Amino acid sequence: MRADVQEDLAELRRRLAELASLEEVLGILSWDQEVMMPAGAGPARGRQVATVALLHHQRLCDPGLRRLLEGLGERDDLDPIDAANVREALRDQRRALRVPPALVERWSEVTVAAHPIWVAARERADFSAFAPILGELVDLARQRAAAIDPDRPTYEVLIDEFEPGMTMAAIDRHFGALQAALTPFIAELRGREGPPLPPAMRARVPAAAQEAIGRELMGVLGFDFERGRLDRAVHPFCGGAGVHDVRITSRYAEDDLLSGLLAIIHETGHALYEQGRDPARADQPVSRARSMGWHESQSLLWENQVGRSPEFWRYLLPWLGERLPVYQGAELDAITRALARVDFGNEIRVEADELTYPLHVILRYELERDLFAGELALADLPAAWNQKMRDYLGVDPADDRRGVLQDVHWAGGAFGYFPSYTLGAMLAAQIFQAALRAEPAIPGELAGGETGRLRTWLREHVHVQGSRLESDALARAVTGAPLGPEAFIEHLRGKFSAAYGLGEAAAG
Amino acid sequence: MRADVQEDLAELRRRLAELASLEEVLGILSWDQEVMMPAGAGPARGRQVATVALLHHQRLCDPGLRRLLEGLGERDDLDPIDAANVREALRDQRRALRVPPALVERWSEVTVAAHPIWVAARERADFSAFAPILGELVDLARQRAAAIDPDRPTYEVLIDEFEPGMTMAAIDRHFGALQAALTPFIAELRGREGPPLPPAMRARVPAAAQEAIGRELMGVLGFDFERGRLDRAVHPFCGGAGVHDVRITSRYAEDDLLSGLLAIIHETGHALYEQGRDPARADQPVSRARSMGWHESQSLLWENQVGRSPEFWRYLLPWLGERLPVYQGAELDAITRALARVDFGNEIRVEADELTYPLHVILRYELERDLFAGELALADLPAAWNQKMRDYLGVDPADDRRGVLQDVHWAGGAFGYFPSYTLGAMLAAQIFQAALRAEPAIPGELAGGETGRLRTWLREHVHVQGSRLESDALARAVTGAPLGPEAFIEHLRGKFSAAYGLGEAAAG
Repeated sequence: MRADVQEDLAELRRRLAELASLEEVLGILSWDQEVMMPAGAGPARGRQVATVALLHHQRLCDPGLRRLLEGLGERDDLDPIDAANVREALRDQRRALRVPPALVERWSEVTVAAHPIWVAARERADFSAFAPILGELVDLARQRAAAIDPDRPTYEVLIDEFEPGMTMAAIDRHFGALQAALTPFIAELRGREGPPLPPAMRARVPAAAQEAIGRELMGVLGFDFERGRLDRAVHPFCGGAGVHDVRITSRYAEDDLLSGLLAIIHETGHALYEQGRDPARADQPVSRARSMGWHESQSLLWENQVGRSPEFWRYLLPWLGERLPVYQGAELDAITRALARVDFGNEIRVEADELTYPLHVILRYELERDLFAGELALADLPAAWNQKMRDYLGVDPADDRRGVLQDVHWAGGAFGYFPSYTLGAMLAAQIFQAALRAEPAIPGELAGGETGRLRTWLREHVHVQGSRLESDALARAVTGAPLGPEAFIEHLRGKFSAAYGLGEAAAG
Repeated sequence: MRADVQEDLAELRRRLAELASLEEVLGILSWDQEVMMPAGAGPARGRQVATVALLHHQRLCDPGLRRLLEGLGERDDLDPIDAANVREALRDQRRALRVPPALVERWSEVTVAAHPIWVAARERADFSAFAPILGELVDLARQRAAAIDPDRPTYEVLIDEFEPGMTMAAIDRHFGALQAALTPFIAELRGREGPPLPPAMRARVPAAAQEAIGRELMGVLGFDFERGRLDRAVHPFCGGAGVHDVRITSRYAEDDLLSGLLAIIHETGHALYEQGRDPARADQPVSRARSMGWHESQSLLWENQVGRSPEFWRYLLPWLGERLPVYQGAELDAITRALARVDFGNEIRVEADELTYPLHVILRYELERDLFAGELALADLPAAWNQKMRDYLGVDPADDRRGVLQDVHWAGGAFGYFPSYTLGAMLAAQIFQAALRAEPAIPGELAGGETGRLRTWLREHVHVQGSRLESDALARAVTGAPLGPEAFIEHLRGKFSAAYGLGEAAAG
C-alpha cells in the first residue's frame, strides 16, 4: 500500500511539474510581451497565450490528475509538505473544473476587449464609455464566483483568488482600525510644514546611469543574476519563469533617481521571494508564494522597512556618493525625512506616499464590496469615488481620468485585488518587527550594507515556506501573532512623526 | 458534399493554426534562450521546451487530425493552395508518426548531452573525446531515417528533412560541376596579389554605433520593425515567432564594421522571407519557407548579390560616410574589391570567403555521405577531413579544434544540413539573374538606395509562394530553369576576376 502511495506521489509530482513548465512558458510570453515584443505581434501573441493556456487547462482538468488528487486528498498519512502540495493542487483544479468552459472563453474575450476601451475612456475622462463593458465584466465575475463557491458572498470568492482564506469580516476589521488610526494622524500632519526636498534628490541622472546603479544595488540586496534579469518596461513588475528565471523591470525619470531606485528595491523584494522558493519543490504548487498580500509584504518590506530607513541609508548615502558626487553633500537625516513626505493633494494611488496609500486602497475595497453586494449601482461609481476621495483624503479628483478610471485592474477583471496591497503593507511591518526581535543585529548590519542576515531569516521563515501553511497559520508561525494592523500603524506613526518633527517621534 | 469539404478545410486550418501557435512559442523560447535567458535557467528551459514540444507532437499525431488529412489528401478537387497545405501537413504528420516515441526521446536526450561534450572536446582539440557520442548520434540518425523511409538511402532521408525532394544524385551533379569550375579558378587566383584592405575598413567603430547603423540599414532593405527586432547574440541568426514577430541578431567586432554589417544584411534577407509569408495563410504550413536552401538563398542574395555589389555600394558608401567620416575618403572600387578578398589559408567554414566556402561544404557533404554509406569509419573522420582540406583548399588544419570539431551541427544531430548552404548560394545567384532579367531597373535603383523593386519581386515570386510548389517546380517557376550551379559560377568568376584584376573581369 505504501508503495502505491509513493507511486501516486511521484506521478502527481510529474504532472504538476508539467503544469509548472506551462506556467513558466506563459510567464516568459508575458514578460516578453511587456519588454521585447514588437507592436505588430500583439494578436499573434494573444493566440499563442490562448493555445498554451487551453492546453494547461486541459492538463489540469485531466481525469487522471483528478483521480490522483482525489485519492491522495483523502489520505491522512501524507507528510505535511506533500499534504500541502495536494491541498494547493486540489484548489487549482477545483477552480478550473467549476468554471464552465463557455464562461472561461467569454471572460477571456471580454477582458481582452475591455482594455483598449478603458484606455480610450480614460483618455477622454469619460466613465460612461467604459461603464457598459465594466458592467459586463462585473456580471461575468458574479457568474464565476457563483460557479466556484455559491455559498460565500461573491466579493469574498473574488478576493479569495488573490488571498486564499481571507474573509471580508477580517478585512473590515483591519481596515477599520487602520483608518481610525490614520485619519486623525494625517489631519495632524496636514497643518505642519513638510520636510524639504534636498537638492541632490532633484539632480538629473541619466537613465543608463540609474539603471547601472540599480543593478548594483540589486546585488547588495542579494538578487542572484545567474537566475534573473533587470530590464526596462512602462510599469515596474516582477515576472519571468519560476525560481531559476526571475525577471524584474523598472523605469527611470531623469530628475527623480530615488523613485526609480525604490521601484527596483520593491521589485527586488518580490524577486527574492521567488528566488527563495524551496529548491526541492520549485516546480510544485506548495513552493508558490502564499498569496498576493504575502508577495507584496516582501516587496514592501525591502522598499519601506529597509529602503527608506535611516539604518540602511547610513550605508546607502556614502555608497551613492561614490557613484554620484552630488550625493556627497547630502545629509542623511534630510534624505530619510524627505522620503517620508506626504503629498496631501495627490489623487493617484500609484503616486501615493506610504501614509496615504492605505486610504486609496480602503476606498476601492469599499466600492467593490458595495458594488458586488448590490448596494452601489455601477452608474453611481464615479460620484461615490469622488465623495470618498473628499471624505478620506480631502482631495477632489479633477475628472474621471484622475478618479474612477485611473486603475488598470477592473479592465482586466481583477476585482478583489486591491486589498492585497494594504494587507501586504501590514504584513511587511509585522514580519520586519518579528525579524528584528529574532535577530537584533539586523539594523546594525544594514547600516554596514550587510543584507544577508535579514535575507536569510526571510528565506527560512517566509520564502522557503511558500504555501506549506495556510495564510493565518503562516502569519502566526512567522510573527507569533495573527495578521493585524498594529505594527504597520506603529511603523507609520514613528516614521512620519520623525519626518514632520512631531513630539511622539521618539516613541515611534 | 462540398459543404463537408469546406467544414473539413476549416477544421484543418484551425488545428494547423494551433500547431503554428505552439511552434511560435517554441520560437520565442529559443530566441529568449540565445538572447535574454539568465545562465542558471538552462535546465528549466529544457523542461519547458520539452513540455511544449511533446504537446505539439501529441496534437500533430492526434487521430482527428489524421482522419482529416487522410480524407483531404485523397481528394483531387481542392484548390492548389489548399492541396499544397494538405501535402505539407501530411509530410509533417507522417514523419512524426513514423519515428517511435522512444527514439524521439532518446534523440532528444543524446543531442542535449552531446553539446557540452563537443564543446569540451573542441576545447581540448580531441576528437576521440567526442567520437563515442557522435557514434551514438550517427546510429540514432540511421534508426530515424530507417523509420521515416526504409526504401531510400539513409543520408538522403536525412537531407530530405532540410531539403524536401532533394536527391544525392542531384547534389553529386551540382557539387561536381561547381568544384570542377572553382578548383582551377582558385588556383589561378592563388598566385596573384589580392586587393588591399582600405584603411576605412580597419577603423575602430564602437559596437553601439555599428548596431545603430545596422538598424538603419535594415530599414533601407525594407525590414518592418513593427513586426520584428534586432538584438545581439553570440552567433547571428534569424528567429522569432512567425510572420508578425521576426527577430534577427548580430555581433560586432569593433575593428571590422563590414563583417557585422554584412551579417545584418544576411539575416535581414532571412527576415524578409519570413515577413513576406502569405499573410492570408501565415499560420498554415503552405506559407512556410520552401526549404533551408531556399531560406539561405534569400539571405545570400541580399548579402552577396546586393550587399557586396558595386551597384549597391554606390549608395552605401556616401551613406556610410555621412555616419562615419572615416568612410568619406574611401574609394568605391577599393571597397568592393576588398569585399572579394580570398583568404587562402583559412580552415574555418564560418570565416570563409564567398569563393572558397562551397569547398568547405562539399568536403562535409562527402564525409557525411561516405559515413552513412558505411564507406568511412568514424575513427577515420579526422584524417579524412584533413586530407580533403589539403586536397580541396590547400590548407592543413592546425588541430581537430580547427578541423573536424569546428562545427556545431553534428553535436545537435543535424546530419545532412551542410549542403543547404551551397544549394542556397546557387539558388541566390540564379534567382538574382532572373530578377534582373524581369526587372532591368533593379541595379540602377539599388545604386540610389531603392530596394523596393527587388524586394517586391522577391516577395511575389518567392516569399508569398512559400511551400505552394515543391522545390523543383518552384525553381522553374521563379527562374525559368531547374536549379543548377551555372549562375553561381558565373557570379563568382565575375566578381573575383574583377577583384583580382583578371582579364575576364569584363566578361563576368
